[in-house]
Amino acid sequence: MKLLRIDICVTLALCLSGGAAQNSAERSLPARTLPTPTTVSPELQEAIAPPWRGMASSAKLTDDQWRAFAKQFDAAGAKLTEELAQKFEVTLSERKIAGVSVYDVKPGTISPENRGRLLVHVHGGAYVFSGGKAAASEAVLMAHYGKIEVLSVDYRMPPDFPFPAALDDSVAVWKEVIKSHNAKSVGLFGTSAGGGLTLATVLKLKELKAPLPGALLAGTPWSDLTKTGDSYYTNEFVDNVLGTNDGLLDGAAHLYAGTHDLKEPLLSPVYGDLSGFPPTILISGTRDLFLSNTVRTHQKLLESGVHAELLVFEGESHAQYEIATKAPESAAAFREAGDFFNRYLAK
Amino acid sequence: MKLLRIDICVTLALCLSGGAAQNSAERSLPARTLPTPTTVSPELQEAIAPPWRGMASSAKLTDDQWRAFAKQFDAAGAKLTEELAQKFEVTLSERKIAGVSVYDVKPGTISPENRGRLLVHVHGGAYVFSGGKAAASEAVLMAHYGKIEVLSVDYRMPPDFPFPAALDDSVAVWKEVIKSHNAKSVGLFGTSAGGGLTLATVLKLKELKAPLPGALLAGTPWSDLTKTGDSYYTNEFVDNVLGTNDGLLDGAAHLYAGTHDLKEPLLSPVYGDLSGFPPTILISGTRDLFLSNTVRTHQKLLESGVHAELLVFEGESHAQYEIATKAPESAAAFREAGDFFNRYLAK
Repeated sequence: MKLLRIDICVTLALCLSGGAAQNSAERSLPARTLPTPTTVSPELQEAIAPPWRGMASSAKLTDDQWRAFAKQFDAAGAKLTEELAQKFEVTLSERKIAGVSVYDVKPGTISPENRGRLLVHVHGGAYVFSGGKAAASEAVLMAHYGKIEVLSVDYRMPPDFPFPAALDDSVAVWKEVIKSHNAKSVGLFGTSAGGGLTLATVLKLKELKAPLPGALLAGTPWSDLTKTGDSYYTNEFVDNVLGTNDGLLDGAAHLYAGTHDLKEPLLSPVYGDLSGFPPTILISGTRDLFLSNTVRTHQKLLESGVHAELLVFEGESHAQYEIATKAPESAAAFREAGDFFNRYLAK
Repeated sequence: MKLLRIDICVTLALCLSGGAAQNSAERSLPARTLPTPTTVSPELQEAIAPPWRGMASSAKLTDDQWRAFAKQFDAAGAKLTEELAQKFEVTLSERKIAGVSVYDVKPGTISPENRGRLLVHVHGGAYVFSGGKAAASEAVLMAHYGKIEVLSVDYRMPPDFPFPAALDDSVAVWKEVIKSHNAKSVGLFGTSAGGGLTLATVLKLKELKAPLPGALLAGTPWSDLTKTGDSYYTNEFVDNVLGTNDGLLDGAAHLYAGTHDLKEPLLSPVYGDLSGFPPTILISGTRDLFLSNTVRTHQKLLESGVHAELLVFEGESHAQYEIATKAPESAAAFREAGDFFNRYLAK
């Protein structure tokens, strides 16, 4: 029997040799089928199983179309916020701080170590969606599982208020919050656009020489608004939440940035100077279109001398830890983030 | 103009609704092209660009074919160990401990805090490859970048010595090492099969009620020897080191396990009781076939109350941090692992 040719790069030398001649800028991948992973809870399997239902399109939306989309999304999001608040016995009340709409989000139980502490939350939604009460759904989950008070910022968004309105609002709220709190006992967090805005807010606070938060959660942060990073390609159509960068996501990036370059650090914070950042925890999933946004930010924080920890959830697409709210993995994500805040926020 | 249907699961409610009707056990992915990421060093780009060069085959190899493969791999691996040792001015000397072949691996510089500390290393290679001097290549990298002494275990392997010979050897060496060292000042590490064996060794030491290491590095551990876990599918053929589980990898798992069930915890340690484990750092890459093996182990450690940290490198396939040794990302991985050991090993 002839020796079968089944190579495996088990030794270093073999991997280093041979491949070079076949180098090219692009590789082809065959069509494949993806089974639903058996390594996650049934609730999460249900969220992972469906294919992405969107459509990639480069057609530009009008401002009115964006508004119509946002209205539809925000109504559904508001309903979810209310359902979660009721389920977890979390109370929400709206007020203004420095002219910005915010929600005070109070859990049924505040743990003894979290008394006097606060988390400021900036919501996700591609900088266009999840305004109004929809803003606070993640804040409800964090307040409940972290047993800590949260202040959720309903920042202004395009098409009416492009960059830097969202950032101005988060900075304005932060400055007001630290008048009555020790900044080191206050954390800042958000997911997706909210993760990007969390990082951008800290970049801006550094620039202003303002006190920084005690710790951060940057959940699958939109840290690069351009289609730059490996998982924009490897997880394209694998991720069933975002699907692809082409179409709505790219449109939202340009709508938010307006005339600004998408790679400005306050828009794409992975390009900023992250030195001096507070301890930061990042969350992603193996199918996340933003896995690269997350791990590039994580590595850059580590290289900048910042203590940074990373969670990657099996099988999850973008932000699925805050979407599949019935899955035990969602509870685990917020509990682990809560533990992190507890370790790093001042008492 | 008609409103375009471009869905995005920005709000929770939308993602939870609608998808359920389309649930199925399997999803189809179209053929795609993968560009080489621009977000990594040129040296790493060179390692990422080539397609996987192996062949998936379910043909069973004879013992003699396995031996011939191993001989070829080990010769190339030994050469690399020697080249790295020379380049980094690391010295290697072979000896026996408890009847097991080991290499003392001494870096040119030992940092002051690492005097008296030691790392025990168990190599990768699917439990079949990288015997002899090939065993020590990763040990050379760790000794150099971590500025710490390493003892690399050249454990016995199949076809002549299946499970539990490798485990018996690592346990025998460990017991001998702690006669002259405080166990808490000694770390244990390995990559791939070596990552799995690191975890299995600690499971066995717990069973024996022997002192445990002070800290662990489980690099992209082969923590599940069956094709179970999402990235076995999502990163199939995306990973250009392992390519697929089908063929050589599956054959090696069965060769190693012999008559044992592949899911026994000492073979697939993700199924073991990980409570009481030492602080552990895990390393993977966004294209790693074992990304799920890594993150499942990380989550299980966290759930078991163990302090565990995760590094995921942009664009990297399985164990590429120890393969693309010229890339700055390789240096970063071993430096970050070295920092971790420095934080957790007793002085």
